[in-house]
Amino acid sequence: MTARRVVATGTFDILHPGHLFYLEESRKLGDELIVIVARDINVKHKPRPVIPEEHRLRMVAALKPVDRAVLGDKSDMFRPIEELMPDVITIGFNQMFDETKLAGQLRARNLTPEIIRIGRCPDGDLCSSRLVVQRIIDKRSHDQHHPAPQT
Amino acid sequence: MTARRVVATGTFDILHPGHLFYLEESRKLGDELIVIVARDINVKHKPRPVIPEEHRLRMVAALKPVDRAVLGDKSDMFRPIEELMPDVITIGFNQMFDETKLAGQLRARNLTPEIIRIGRCPDGDLCSSRLVVQRIIDKRSHDQHHPAPQT
Repeated sequence: MTARRVVATGTFDILHPGHLFYLEESRKLGDELIVIVARDINVKHKPRPVIPEEHRLRMVAALKPVDRAVLGDKSDMFRPIEELMPDVITIGFNQMFDETKLAGQLRARNLTPEIIRIGRCPDGDLCSSRLVVQRIIDKRSHDQHHPAPQT
Repeated sequence: MTARRVVATGTFDILHPGHLFYLEESRKLGDELIVIVARDINVKHKPRPVIPEEHRLRMVAALKPVDRAVLGDKSDMFRPIEELMPDVITIGFNQMFDETKLAGQLRARNLTPEIIRIGRCPDGDLCSSRLVVQRIIDKRSHDQHHPAPQT
């Protein structure tokens, strides 16, 4: 019996409990979890990452549920999937993939992994990079206008 | 022979490669690493954390070099150290402890761990929460004034 390989993907800009939940749940679906971390130049559907790709890669690789992390391909998002040959591909609850379309694109390359969408993490506002960034901006802007008394 | 226990401490607000470097280097100094994560109310020497303590705790505990993470004591920073009885306490390169003063405070409680300051992480600007937060604010403020073209 061979190990059941799970592949997860994402930008993982500023690590938060939502990322951890997605990776922990992904890891439970198989025997090993490999994560494809998006290249800086390929993040186009949302603001560019704050943290450069090499650092994002290193932080994801340091998380316990992750067996290995790799950077995505600059021009062909399916190339690392062809190389990794996963049994399962997981999608985060707010990732904008259409499962049916994705399955078709993979089948065109003779790839037939199971595609599983992971549910929403139970921690609400802290499970979204966008909301964490907004929280930082709101909080620090408040701090600048209401500095703590010097003690 | 008993395991050599290392204790590291910090706020770990927005995880970055500097935290990882500090924890990896700390782990190398013994057989197990326990991390004391600062309580929200005890962070007074810098802006309050953006991420609540329970989430900071969970993220630190998820990092590979960390065997266990615990929250600090709300009123007595030395209490968890008395409970954990570390052989080594590590200090981050920019943590504002005076090693001699700290050694004296610990000795007053019959604690005599080795105190080791970990060097600066080699990744410059991305190894400081303050600089990462500044980078987020600068970048997002630039994005708001120079939005990417809609494609």
